[in-house]
Amino acid sequence: MREVFQQELQEVQDRLVEIASLVATSIERATTAFNDSNVTVAETVIADDSTIDELAASLDELAITILARQAPVARDLRIVVSALRISASLERMGDIASHIAQLARYRFPDKVVPQTLRETFARMGQLDVEIAHRLVDLLETEDVQIAEEIRNEDDKVDELHVSVFDAVLAETWAGEASATVDATLASRYHERFADHAVSIAKKVQYLATGNWVPAEA
Amino acid sequence: MREVFQQELQEVQDRLVEIASLVATSIERATTAFNDSNVTVAETVIADDSTIDELAASLDELAITILARQAPVARDLRIVVSALRISASLERMGDIASHIAQLARYRFPDKVVPQTLRETFARMGQLDVEIAHRLVDLLETEDVQIAEEIRNEDDKVDELHVSVFDAVLAETWAGEASATVDATLASRYHERFADHAVSIAKKVQYLATGNWVPAEA
Repeated sequence: MREVFQQELQEVQDRLVEIASLVATSIERATTAFNDSNVTVAETVIADDSTIDELAASLDELAITILARQAPVARDLRIVVSALRISASLERMGDIASHIAQLARYRFPDKVVPQTLRETFARMGQLDVEIAHRLVDLLETEDVQIAEEIRNEDDKVDELHVSVFDAVLAETWAGEASATVDATLASRYHERFADHAVSIAKKVQYLATGNWVPAEA
Repeated sequence: MREVFQQELQEVQDRLVEIASLVATSIERATTAFNDSNVTVAETVIADDSTIDELAASLDELAITILARQAPVARDLRIVVSALRISASLERMGDIASHIAQLARYRFPDKVVPQTLRETFARMGQLDVEIAHRLVDLLETEDVQIAEEIRNEDDKVDELHVSVFDAVLAETWAGEASATVDATLASRYHERFADHAVSIAKKVQYLATGNWVPAEA
C-alpha cells in the first residue's frame, strides 16, 4: 500500500512538472507574441490554454482519488493538498499568459506598447519566462534555493511594474489612452504571473522544510 | 463518528459564511471609499484584509484536520476539498476589495475616476456588493437559484467592464493618463471580484447537484 502511495505521489509530482512546463512554453510564446506582434504565436498560446486547464482538472481528480483511496495523514496529506493548490496557481498562470497573448492579437499589426516602454516589457517578459523555467526545476528537484531565486526575480518584476506606472504618469508620457490601458493591463498581468510563481514556491518550500504556508500567502 | 463529522462540516460551512460576510462588508466599504473618496473607510478595508486572510488560513487548517481525522470519501470528501477552494477565492476577493480601497486612498482627496465614469463605477460597485451578499446567502442556504443570479449579475459587471474600455478609448475621453490607469485597474478589479464569486457559485452548485466543477473554472 505504501509503495502504491509513493508511486501515486510521484505521478502527482510528474504531472505538476508537466503542467509547469506547458505554462513555461506559453509565457515564452506570449512574450514573443507581445514583443514582436506575432499573431500566429499569440493564437497558439490562446489555444493551448485549454490544454493546461484540462491537465490541471485531471490532476485535481487524481489528487482527490488519492485522498479517497489512501486517506493520507500528516505530511503526506499536506503534499496532496498542496498539489491541489499548486495546480490552481499553474492554471491561473496559463490564463495570464493567454491574456498577454490576447493583448498582442488585439493590437495586431501594431505593437502593444510604445517604443519608450518596449525595453521594460521585454525585461518583464524575460523575467516571467525565467521564473516559469525555475518553477519547473523547483517542482522537479524541490531545491529550496530555487524558491529563493524565484522570490528575487519577483522583486525585480515588481520594480519594473512600478516603473511602468512611473513612466505612464510622467509628464513626458505621450502615449494615447489605448497605450495607457494596454501598458497598465500588461504590467499587471506580468506582475500577477510572477506572484503566482512565488505562491507556488512557498508551498514547495513548505514541503521541503515543514513550514506550512496558508493558501494564497 | 458520523455525527462528529457532520458537526465538523457544519463548522466549515459556518466559517465560510463568516468569511463571506466579512468580504461583503469589505467590498461595501471599498465601494463607499471609492465613490466618496473616504480615506478613513478605505483604511478600514485595508486593515480588515488581514483578518480575512487569517480566517481563511484557519479554515484551511480545519479542513486539513478533517481530512486527516475523518478520511472522508465520495461527496463528503469533495465538500471538504471545495471548502479549501472556496476559502482561497474568498481570500482573493478580500484582496481585491483592499486593492479598490487602496486606489481611493492613493488618489485622496481627489476622486479616483472622472465625472463621466462615476455612474458606471457606482453601478459596478453596487453589483459587486449585491453579488457578495448573494454569496453569503448561497453559502448559507445552498439554494442553486442564487448561483444563477450571481452569474447574471456577473454578466452585467462584464458589460460595464467593456463599457469602461469603450469610454476610455473613445475620442471624447479627456482623462489624463492617471485617470486612464485608475479606470483600467478599478474596472479590472471589479470584474475579477465578480469572477471569483461565480467560481465559488459553481462549486456550491456542484455540491447541491453533484456535477463536479474543476478548479478555477
